[in-house]
Amino acid sequence: MLPIRECVLQTPGYVPGEQPQTNDFIKLNTNENPYPPPPEIFDALQAELPKLRLYPDPVSTKLRKAAGAVFGVSADNIIAGNGSDDILSIAIRTFVNPGEAIAFLDLTYSLYDTLARIHGASIIEIPTDENFALSEPIICPEAKLIFLASPNPPVGKHLNRDYLEKTCAQSTAIVVIDEAYVDFSDENHLDFLQKYDNVIISRTMSKSYSLAGMRVGFGMASQSLIEQMNKVRDSYNLDRLSQTLATAALESHSYFQTIWQKVRRTRSRAIAALRDLEFFVFDSDSNFVLASPQWMSAAELYAQLKERKILVRYFKHPRILNYVRISIGTDEEIDRLLTAIAQIKAQK
Amino acid sequence: MLPIRECVLQTPGYVPGEQPQTNDFIKLNTNENPYPPPPEIFDALQAELPKLRLYPDPVSTKLRKAAGAVFGVSADNIIAGNGSDDILSIAIRTFVNPGEAIAFLDLTYSLYDTLARIHGASIIEIPTDENFALSEPIICPEAKLIFLASPNPPVGKHLNRDYLEKTCAQSTAIVVIDEAYVDFSDENHLDFLQKYDNVIISRTMSKSYSLAGMRVGFGMASQSLIEQMNKVRDSYNLDRLSQTLATAALESHSYFQTIWQKVRRTRSRAIAALRDLEFFVFDSDSNFVLASPQWMSAAELYAQLKERKILVRYFKHPRILNYVRISIGTDEEIDRLLTAIAQIKAQK
Repeated sequence: MLPIRECVLQTPGYVPGEQPQTNDFIKLNTNENPYPPPPEIFDALQAELPKLRLYPDPVSTKLRKAAGAVFGVSADNIIAGNGSDDILSIAIRTFVNPGEAIAFLDLTYSLYDTLARIHGASIIEIPTDENFALSEPIICPEAKLIFLASPNPPVGKHLNRDYLEKTCAQSTAIVVIDEAYVDFSDENHLDFLQKYDNVIISRTMSKSYSLAGMRVGFGMASQSLIEQMNKVRDSYNLDRLSQTLATAALESHSYFQTIWQKVRRTRSRAIAALRDLEFFVFDSDSNFVLASPQWMSAAELYAQLKERKILVRYFKHPRILNYVRISIGTDEEIDRLLTAIAQIKAQK
Repeated sequence: MLPIRECVLQTPGYVPGEQPQTNDFIKLNTNENPYPPPPEIFDALQAELPKLRLYPDPVSTKLRKAAGAVFGVSADNIIAGNGSDDILSIAIRTFVNPGEAIAFLDLTYSLYDTLARIHGASIIEIPTDENFALSEPIICPEAKLIFLASPNPPVGKHLNRDYLEKTCAQSTAIVVIDEAYVDFSDENHLDFLQKYDNVIISRTMSKSYSLAGMRVGFGMASQSLIEQMNKVRDSYNLDRLSQTLATAALESHSYFQTIWQKVRRTRSRAIAALRDLEFFVFDSDSNFVLASPQWMSAAELYAQLKERKILVRYFKHPRILNYVRISIGTDEEIDRLLTAIAQIKAQK
């Protein structure tokens, strides 16, 4: 008998969204930004290529400075991750002993569940209300770590700010506020960092900064939390080109602000059009919408769209069996989606 | 009191070698390859840049195929890591519950100790002999995981192959054979994969493939071990440009074979010259040598070389207090090192 941890054996493993390696799909399934980063960020690559034989800066100094300038936080309060998934994993391994509890909403980013399981942590699922929202502050004294995504997938709305703040204020746990989608909204929770020493804000460059392919994320927290998380972080977790491109992207911040407004306009249009096509659609603060066709099962809609080379996300979760999650693409991509849906509906 | 794990609080954290962000040092301290990768690997970048807004292939398919072709192993028996450090961390989290034991030599890659500590594992140090070598097969029934680097730093010699094989054959633990430096020698242990289902071979592209800056490594093992390790692996652990450049580098395998021979010739010359300069120097199967000046303390030599803008590695480990570890640079870099040492010796 080989020694494999029981908690690992029992975990099915995280299933990422489909990533077709061909280009013939309209890809609206994993919340990537439909617009590429500005070409000038590639100018920084040339100077880096001759240095690839050398280890990268282990602590991503320039990148954290650039992030700090954008987020209004000192670089000393930032840890850089190989995607924000790395930050989530580091947080678990820093703050939770196996057997101790991690709390998160019953409907949220499914990686929290996988990460808790492979760590051997126990899981406390906080029930959401009928709108899949947080219905009161979380009181959960057993939890060592609470993951709260705001905006929260798969709905994509911000959680109630007052409930979130009370959760941070009243909790003895570390509270990770996962702001992966925050740039597509008008709010964030960076101000909590000044008020609560148990808060970590995580961010990613995968969505709003159009760099899903480069795996860059951040955790922001008090220096004492960052110091402990840095012990758990792999000592060279970000390669040279990720650090370089992400730094350049942050320095092109204003380009991305324009993009976010564009995505939000397309989102408004998509929501209105889907409602016209007899979908129930939640309002969204993210670059995706959760929508339920009132005239066909979501599973069938997903399959028919896939036949037409349009990928949306379908989750086999009992509470959202009749929903699809649609990433906001370009206007043209959304138009092609809407046309396809209208055809499917007409043929039914 | 914030919940920080005791095992993390008590760990000082891994200290990577100095990575000066300026170019004015001769850098012989972290075993990087002195020769850059061949320029043609950069041709593959152009096609990838327009795709950076999209997630990478989560399972690094092309990269694992290219690695399999070079190593003579099926891609199904390979897991790709964000550096081989990622593989080491994944192995611990897959096979060892906190409180269970991890075994490694008392003098070896110091990250094993850090990774074991932050996981809350107990540590069994296997004593090495007076040459810092494995003196018999390891019999350690309590260990769930045994890390054995061959070649083993900081000496850089292969461990006794017969002892290694007996350890694999007799052990109920998972045995990770860390072959980070294997390409600078004539032997490897890939044949163990066919014979023992408890063996994982780890490799890195940081040293022999001149890509320390891109963080790419591999674990090779039976499919059933790879399957479990994939659950623990971050789902998008390798970004697009790492996958692309590492694939291209593996496809330029013959270029690197020439480089490895060149490094070995420089190594032979460096060892002979250091011995002429009254150093005790171990033979080496790696791209570094462990050397002890017989006429000055290693700490002082390290400091005087650093003043002359030459970085070597000095470890504050009681058994090697009078040694420096010197990475094999270009012939010109080694000549400048030897000249500097001769001057320091003459001035003494």
